[in-house]
Amino acid sequence: MNFTQRECVILTHDTQTLYQHGTLALLVPGLLAGTQTVGELMHHGDTGIGTLTGLNGELIMRAGHVYQVNADGAVREVDADERVPFANVHFQDDHQVATLTGLDYAALCDQIAAAVGTQNIFYAVRLVGTFAHVQTRAVRGRTTPPFATLAATAATQSIFNAEHVEGTLSGYYSPALYGGATSPGFHLHFLSADRQFGGHVLDAQVGNATLFIQEFSDFQLHLPTTDASFRQEQFDTAQVLRDINQAEH
Amino acid sequence: MNFTQRECVILTHDTQTLYQHGTLALLVPGLLAGTQTVGELMHHGDTGIGTLTGLNGELIMRAGHVYQVNADGAVREVDADERVPFANVHFQDDHQVATLTGLDYAALCDQIAAAVGTQNIFYAVRLVGTFAHVQTRAVRGRTTPPFATLAATAATQSIFNAEHVEGTLSGYYSPALYGGATSPGFHLHFLSADRQFGGHVLDAQVGNATLFIQEFSDFQLHLPTTDASFRQEQFDTAQVLRDINQAEH
Repeated sequence: MNFTQRECVILTHDTQTLYQHGTLALLVPGLLAGTQTVGELMHHGDTGIGTLTGLNGELIMRAGHVYQVNADGAVREVDADERVPFANVHFQDDHQVATLTGLDYAALCDQIAAAVGTQNIFYAVRLVGTFAHVQTRAVRGRTTPPFATLAATAATQSIFNAEHVEGTLSGYYSPALYGGATSPGFHLHFLSADRQFGGHVLDAQVGNATLFIQEFSDFQLHLPTTDASFRQEQFDTAQVLRDINQAEH
Repeated sequence: MNFTQRECVILTHDTQTLYQHGTLALLVPGLLAGTQTVGELMHHGDTGIGTLTGLNGELIMRAGHVYQVNADGAVREVDADERVPFANVHFQDDHQVATLTGLDYAALCDQIAAAVGTQNIFYAVRLVGTFAHVQTRAVRGRTTPPFATLAATAATQSIFNAEHVEGTLSGYYSPALYGGATSPGFHLHFLSADRQFGGHVLDAQVGNATLFIQEFSDFQLHLPTTDASFRQEQFDTAQVLRDINQAEH
């Protein structure tokens, strides 16, 4: 049997794939050049999280719009020609799975994991509602070289707190097996409904919120293969995992 | 700026993506049910390597044909409705990079690595020519449940040797960072020009052969997300990496 029959496919948006530009490992030694434009990235999804060149702030993508929370806590829309060293996007097609009330962050993560019922697949999390408390951070990266390591950049992060805030907590769960390519476990960002507050979630207390989940069959890892610094780097896999756990959790 | 503009894309075959069905970790505890048909798999490439349900033999895909080397050393063509627990395919668009003469296997791997010049990206290897010696193995998996673990199956493998053989050594290089999803480093299979000899390469002595390389920007990991055994498994990441290194190298 021969399987070479060539065929053309009319693609509608693929809602089964989590797309990632970059590998989390490259942030560790500070390979923070923006190697993909936001415009290119958004061909692969309308929803997601990421960061800009130099690890500059926290990105939240929603309904095709890209927002940056910077280290001063300000939120702005990002332009198509800005660049990312690392980001995840997907085309949103999630499903309501639960209403959650009065949970701390650990209990929230437990409830999400229980609702999905497997630790072995990638999925998107979206939690929309009111939060009694949300604590976020935003990193203050240099926007031009030389870039700092992940550990050094994370050490200068800003931390923000909001009480009784309405908004959306969104991001991804990645199985532990793929740590190094990804930040294993939950990686969640927040954006308030009024777009005045957000960042990488460090802690949250759910008031009343609706949980939406989107499971992915495919994880597409897109690497900056033409970037000379990326090609030349000697990654220490064990060190990468230690630094990711330190900086991202 | 809004990036939601919907568009349809006419796809020609994507030669930038290495597609993988399954994750290498699922072989370790013996999750060896065939979760994708060979016909479905071959929509994602015309070239590759893999195994059948139960870890039954070694697959070599070439020009849209799929060959199995079984544990008796026999080679046959595989049908579209047979199934794989794990396989890699891509659409071949490789480039000649070197002519190699008189190398043992370690020197061969060093020469390939030097020709590519980076350890950080996925690429396909194809080496076509004469070999003074090739040693292969083929695993003898059960074709029906209950399936054995990777270690137990590998322990019953058959080993084959051929001298002065013409053929093609083909497969992939995966960066160490993605061990667990993949077998890190080189994962190469062999098929003789007369299709009488092949398998998973354990050793080789190159006579005179031409090296072709195809770098990938994208690694697409497709998981069997509807398989109950896969969803329920509790993977021990450290154990997975130890068992993969034991069985695949």
